[in-house]
Amino acid sequence: MNSFEMAEVLTNALPHIQRYDKKMVVIKYGGSAMMDESLKKSVLSDAMLLAKVGMNVVIVHGGGPDINYWLDKADVTSTFVNGLRQTNLETMEIVQMVLAGKINKDLTRMIQSLGGKAMGISGVDGGLVQATLKNPEDLGAVGEISQVNTEVIEDLVSVGYIPVISCIGMDEDGNSCNINADEMAGGIAKALKADNFVLMSDVPGVLEDTSDPSTLIQQIEISTVEHLYQNNVISGGMIPKVSCCKDAVENQVKQAVILDGRIPHALIIEFLTDSGIGTLFYKEEKEAERSLT
Amino acid sequence: MNSFEMAEVLTNALPHIQRYDKKMVVIKYGGSAMMDESLKKSVLSDAMLLAKVGMNVVIVHGGGPDINYWLDKADVTSTFVNGLRQTNLETMEIVQMVLAGKINKDLTRMIQSLGGKAMGISGVDGGLVQATLKNPEDLGAVGEISQVNTEVIEDLVSVGYIPVISCIGMDEDGNSCNINADEMAGGIAKALKADNFVLMSDVPGVLEDTSDPSTLIQQIEISTVEHLYQNNVISGGMIPKVSCCKDAVENQVKQAVILDGRIPHALIIEFLTDSGIGTLFYKEEKEAERSLT
Amino acid sequence: MNSFEMAEVLTNALPHIQRYDKKMVVIKYGGSAMMDESLKKSVLSDAMLLAKVGMNVVIVHGGGPDINYWLDKADVTSTFVNGLRQTNLETMEIVQMVLAGKINKDLTRMIQSLGGKAMGISGVDGGLVQATLKNPEDLGAVGEISQVNTEVIEDLVSVGYIPVISCIGMDEDGNSCNINADEMAGGIAKALKADNFVLMSDVPGVLEDTSDPSTLIQQIEISTVEHLYQNNVISGGMIPKVSCCKDAVENQVKQAVILDGRIPHALIIEFLTDSGIGTLFYKEEKEAERSLT
Amino acid sequence: MNSFEMAEVLTNALPHIQRYDKKMVVIKYGGSAMMDESLKKSVLSDAMLLAKVGMNVVIVHGGGPDINYWLDKADVTSTFVNGLRQTNLETMEIVQMVLAGKINKDLTRMIQSLGGKAMGISGVDGGLVQATLKNPEDLGAVGEISQVNTEVIEDLVSVGYIPVISCIGMDEDGNSCNINADEMAGGIAKALKADNFVLMSDVPGVLEDTSDPSTLIQQIEISTVEHLYQNNVISGGMIPKVSCCKDAVENQVKQAVILDGRIPHALIIEFLTDSGIGTLFYKEEKEAERSLT
Amino acid sequence: MNSFEMAEVLTNALPHIQRYDKKMVVIKYGGSAMMDESLKKSVLSDAMLLAKVGMNVVIVHGGGPDINYWLDKADVTSTFVNGLRQTNLETMEIVQMVLAGKINKDLTRMIQSLGGKAMGISGVDGGLVQATLKNPEDLGAVGEISQVNTEVIEDLVSVGYIPVISCIGMDEDGNSCNINADEMAGGIAKALKADNFVLMSDVPGVLEDTSDPSTLIQQIEISTVEHLYQNNVISGGMIPKVSCCKDAVENQVKQAVILDGRIPHALIIEFLTDSGIGTLFYKEEKEAERSLT
Amino acid sequence: MNSFEMAEVLTNALPHIQRYDKKMVVIKYGGSAMMDESLKKSVLSDAMLLAKVGMNVVIVHGGGPDINYWLDKADVTSTFVNGLRQTNLETMEIVQMVLAGKINKDLTRMIQSLGGKAMGISGVDGGLVQATLKNPEDLGAVGEISQVNTEVIEDLVSVGYIPVISCIGMDEDGNSCNINADEMAGGIAKALKADNFVLMSDVPGVLEDTSDPSTLIQQIEISTVEHLYQNNVISGGMIPKVSCCKDAVENQVKQAVILDGRIPHALIIEFLTDSGIGTLFYKEEKEAERSLT
Repeated sequence: MNSFEMAEVLTNALPHIQRYDKKMVVIKYGGSAMMDESLKKSVLSDAMLLAKVGMNVVIVHGGGPDINYWLDKADVTSTFVNGLRQTNLETMEIVQMVLAGKINKDLTRMIQSLGGKAMGISGVDGGLVQATLKNPEDLGAVGEISQVNTEVIEDLVSVGYIPVISCIGMDEDGNSCNINADEMAGGIAKALKADNFVLMSDVPGVLEDTSDPSTLIQQIEISTVEHLYQNNVISGGMIPKVSCCKDAVENQVKQAVILDGRIPHALIIEFLTDSGIGTLFYKEEKEAERSLT
Repeated sequence: MNSFEMAEVLTNALPHIQRYDKKMVVIKYGGSAMMDESLKKSVLSDAMLLAKVGMNVVIVHGGGPDINYWLDKADVTSTFVNGLRQTNLETMEIVQMVLAGKINKDLTRMIQSLGGKAMGISGVDGGLVQATLKNPEDLGAVGEISQVNTEVIEDLVSVGYIPVISCIGMDEDGNSCNINADEMAGGIAKALKADNFVLMSDVPGVLEDTSDPSTLIQQIEISTVEHLYQNNVISGGMIPKVSCCKDAVENQVKQAVILDGRIPHALIIEFLTDSGIGTLFYKEEKEAERSLT
Repeated sequence: MNSFEMAEVLTNALPHIQRYDKKMVVIKYGGSAMMDESLKKSVLSDAMLLAKVGMNVVIVHGGGPDINYWLDKADVTSTFVNGLRQTNLETMEIVQMVLAGKINKDLTRMIQSLGGKAMGISGVDGGLVQATLKNPEDLGAVGEISQVNTEVIEDLVSVGYIPVISCIGMDEDGNSCNINADEMAGGIAKALKADNFVLMSDVPGVLEDTSDPSTLIQQIEISTVEHLYQNNVISGGMIPKVSCCKDAVENQVKQAVILDGRIPHALIIEFLTDSGIGTLFYKEEKEAERSLT
Repeated sequence: MNSFEMAEVLTNALPHIQRYDKKMVVIKYGGSAMMDESLKKSVLSDAMLLAKVGMNVVIVHGGGPDINYWLDKADVTSTFVNGLRQTNLETMEIVQMVLAGKINKDLTRMIQSLGGKAMGISGVDGGLVQATLKNPEDLGAVGEISQVNTEVIEDLVSVGYIPVISCIGMDEDGNSCNINADEMAGGIAKALKADNFVLMSDVPGVLEDTSDPSTLIQQIEISTVEHLYQNNVISGGMIPKVSCCKDAVENQVKQAVILDGRIPHALIIEFLTDSGIGTLFYKEEKEAERSLT
Repeated sequence: MNSFEMAEVLTNALPHIQRYDKKMVVIKYGGSAMMDESLKKSVLSDAMLLAKVGMNVVIVHGGGPDINYWLDKADVTSTFVNGLRQTNLETMEIVQMVLAGKINKDLTRMIQSLGGKAMGISGVDGGLVQATLKNPEDLGAVGEISQVNTEVIEDLVSVGYIPVISCIGMDEDGNSCNINADEMAGGIAKALKADNFVLMSDVPGVLEDTSDPSTLIQQIEISTVEHLYQNNVISGGMIPKVSCCKDAVENQVKQAVILDGRIPHALIIEFLTDSGIGTLFYKEEKEAERSLT
Repeated sequence: MNSFEMAEVLTNALPHIQRYDKKMVVIKYGGSAMMDESLKKSVLSDAMLLAKVGMNVVIVHGGGPDINYWLDKADVTSTFVNGLRQTNLETMEIVQMVLAGKINKDLTRMIQSLGGKAMGISGVDGGLVQATLKNPEDLGAVGEISQVNTEVIEDLVSVGYIPVISCIGMDEDGNSCNINADEMAGGIAKALKADNFVLMSDVPGVLEDTSDPSTLIQQIEISTVEHLYQNNVISGGMIPKVSCCKDAVENQVKQAVILDGRIPHALIIEFLTDSGIGTLFYKEEKEAERSLT
């Protein structure tokens, strides 16, 4: 590609940059995009670019295989109840160490070493996320968000930090608890009345035919989601992801998008080019705003 | 070009964006880039993009053929003395109308209609540029800068406007006078201690062999300029341009660059890609910073 | 007059100064007061004094004979349709140059040279005035205000500039258009919810008997205006002026006054002495506030 | 006087207003101007006008006959030592009550009732004036300024109050003490690096021939004061006043003026007209600035 | 007491400090606590400590025996009408001098000499308290609050001063008038929507049996006050104090407390220990907040 | 203890509170005070109290036995070289998880649950601590501070957070490294030009006779430290602690103190009572400031 073509690409980003200026974008970061070192660097670099061109970027991350690795390493056995990990004190201790001590600091460090400005925190810091335990007897320290203190994020964003947040909350007794990363990110997006909530995962988005990536549904008005559930277009592991997006858009978040984290620079393609990628969820308008720019 | 390649280009701009964050960039805008409607739109759009990704952009423009057109139209004859136009009152009146009333407002309007935020002013507004007449008896209202009130620009930049400045100043008697656009832009860049001064013109830059564009000198340490004058590498109309850049870099401006305004997106190529374009002037360092990024 | 009498005059201005502290005053400036150099200097000096004692002064100016002079000079013929100039592209170009390039810069320059601080802009700058064309087929680029972006004026006023505004707007296609100066000033006053709108013209105000200046009506409650139209007390060229004032007072402007710009220091007499001058328009109160101080 | 003449007077005040914009003016207020109700109202109104047109006005007042009246009334006998009142505890109590409780509050109240905004304080409030006793054994609570905490005045001025200050300080033991009003005002002016220090008294200024008011010396360069002492041009009660002005101008105050408080609107004549009044003290320049405007 | 016990006491204050952080506390200061030098120092020191640990403290003081002393000393006879002093001009002059000139400045001075930061003002300063005369014919200058300009207090508190306020107001004719200190303090507390109003007096609080201090009622829900009046639990001089507290709590003040100023450090015990002291008035909650901490 | 005694203790804290107002206090927190749950709660509560009464408190913590516990648990063997742990990648990973994921979050959570406002970060966040490796070949990821970006701490402190910092830095290659907690705390104190640096450990301070606590040296002028080394008064594990304090006081920190974290409320005793505790290090003054209050 010659420099004129490159300049053309950059210039074409201008209307996108104008559209997202000062907009709050919450990114749920996880899956393959967090496992692969090269993808990780690319995602964080993309997030920095979005921040640099004017968006207020917030990153919420989960844990993934690192938690299992360290549970094994420390010889702690987890039992699962209805797909949820029984989180006793010893498990919780390891979960917290891996999320807040390993992954969170590694992500923050990588942003800093790329020349960015990040602050790695958890839901405990500044009382960001207060939680209640879902089912303490069966599940132990598994919480759900009861309140988000958005001031913590605003304090950091206003002085130029990208908040990198691990999905740990504080329960009513002042103890740590584990919160599902999608729920954590969605809850923070709702509390912030974010303009965009990005759910990054290992799927291309909602497919008409799950075996055929070319059947990607580019955008879904949220009132039609129920219909898609009933038709089994959305099924299995896709259901909680779509529900999370739908819930966000129903609660003050302007748009949500399921992005494929395995695609290099998916964030840039979605936010700074005309292409768009993944499945966008929006409300009430005839067409999603993405397609209008 | 597919979206992955596009994303790659955008991502590659990040270090450039980081490097120029909050930097003051003064652009002397003129020549073909101001005559051709399509180039004009492209230059202004490029300037907006630079502003949007974090630079403080200031545009200083000259007049060009419009002035002659309206002098003719109004049947006013200009005499030239040593290449400088004798600017009597009637001529000055037309010069001011064309610069501040036509070109300045048209540029400002175009930025606004592209979604930007610009304020079209002159050296008279807010007392921005105070001037003294060079040779009132022979040349009339031809001035040179005696003082720049940078507060005017800072006031506008701090609330997000791109100042678009026409090269009119106020002389010691409170009358308007015409100032050479290169001098005007250079003088403002010096007063602002700008990080970059861009002199946009209709040449590719300094060429070893003026008949061969491939002999472009990419960067020149300013202490070597005298040598290039003596060797006739720099001669003719190139001399005042190079002197203007040299003068800027000798007086608190960090870098100056002669850019070819006829190349679409020259500003973007220079500031947001690894390529660079035109001839860069710098001081004392072994290599110019551009080549280091 | 001895210095004690002078001090008395100054002291008597105090309650007026207190009353207008931080009040927004929009002055439509035109007519003889803009043609005569001595009156011009006096009006601008008066406006500066009002600004200095605490008012937020905004000046909106029209064009007057200068436009015809330059149309003639450039051999452009104007046709009039129902009293409105057909404004084709060539005409518009000259109108813009005269308004924004000549008159606007001359006024701004004079304020600066008197020691004031002014910024000369148009409705195009910062997107101040968005307009729609009244009748593009017959009239060409003659617009009426559709939206005023008051932030532009507040940005300038907050850092101490007197905005001097020429009556050019930007239409929906991003082109320049000409707006009647009274409409421009009134529209800006309404958008700013100004405390005072001054319509400076070449008449003493509304006269009971147009041949007898001693029959000046000092103040008119706007609900009685219709009655005065029907009785032919207000007729001819006075009708649009009165309508403009009435419209302003009906739309959030506290008071409007038609002042005779031919009277030296009319602004000072109106705002800083007990006398008052011209005809004041107010709403609903038994007596206008001017008479109460 | 007709309204045009009035307007002329007001307009002529503009350069004076421009010259004193944001300037700090400390007024020692006392003598007849404080005794006569009509003069008092006029002085306070004048001070408000100066504040309103942009000066930062600070008023320091003394006590005068009220102190003797209340000492008599309370049957307290004062002895004088070298012209200074022996200020025992009982005397000090009455001095403080009269200065801070009667005069100070009456002045403040009058400004408020005229529509101004004043805060009546003493040197004790906020630790404004720290003092040392001059000669505690012979004189009791008679202090001289050792330190001025200008922050107190800046706090009040920055939110629009005129500070009205009574000449009470706090000595090193934390007790109240009386400070000569001229010294108090001069000391505060020096600490504030005031632009003007006005010493209002019952004399026209320095006279060549004390019996002939027409021999008023309009301005005195402070290096010539010694000479005037030796020639007895300045003698008697005039000496401490001149010394106070000289001391101020030698210590960072730009100009000092001895004004005749018995002349109505002396402040306005001095600051807002071309006339000037009283004797001005200045430093090193050939002519005082007053005469240059 | 050893240092560990001391540390324990300090640590126990933490929840109280947290609870009152940034809370507005208006203290009516008078009675014995103002007469006795040692108690005075202790009260002011306590107030400073409350300010230092985060409360916004405002002190309103009355006059007490000093007024009678100086009326006697100046041979001015007061007549009382229904328990209210007839306040003619001469009396008012002395009342003002004692309140604003003696007591106010002495309190302010003591705070400053203890290392605090206080500003001694009256209801006249900045137009803090506007009043109407209760019964000018019979009582003379006895006023009641008609309006409080809370901005004055906010201006002082925001830059760290403890306002010390004497109970003088300005009536509709711009004259001084005397306001009952309890009314003055209560009125200011109401206007400020204070969190706490402390009425310091020479009683332990409301007693079931006035002869037995052990029968102190610790807290009273204000809807029960009427009942206590009817049962004569509250009678005599206690009635206006209780009414003042009730009125405050009924008008936006969160809590009021009658404290015994004769008890050393009563303010500290009430605000920074678990004990509480005196009688607390609150509204609608089952138990007063004090007992919950 | 009765409430009057308690009030006395609180009142006596006032001069200490005044002295430390807005002072920056860096606390190295570790040892027994971090192991024992009850001591931990007491230390954090004390730190909150210090913050609440006006100090800017920064907490830096180390790791202690938790690191060994988790190294064992994960079957990672550490080798020691000259008393320093060889920190290979796997060890560093655990060290980081324990410091930044377990201890840091637990401390932050405890402050939050006590009603405070804390932000748990590391030297990596915001680029707070840049480090160089001491001896990468032998020791692996053991770093020493090369630069501290104090802006991170100022950003947090200015909006009311207590920064809780774990001793992890980022080396020149952008990798995590372990920094000795005393060095980390001391380095941060120096960069902040802290007023106080508290080194909390498990010793009473410097003892003349290490077997006799009654021989505590209350304060040491730092120029005498060398002498104490030579006399073996300071020896063994005490040497690095004293060196750390001496280094701090020699480099812009005003005072350093070695406190016994095993004593409940040692921080309160040191900062808010007259007693003082531990050994204070100061420079050049005859007596340490602590003893003067």
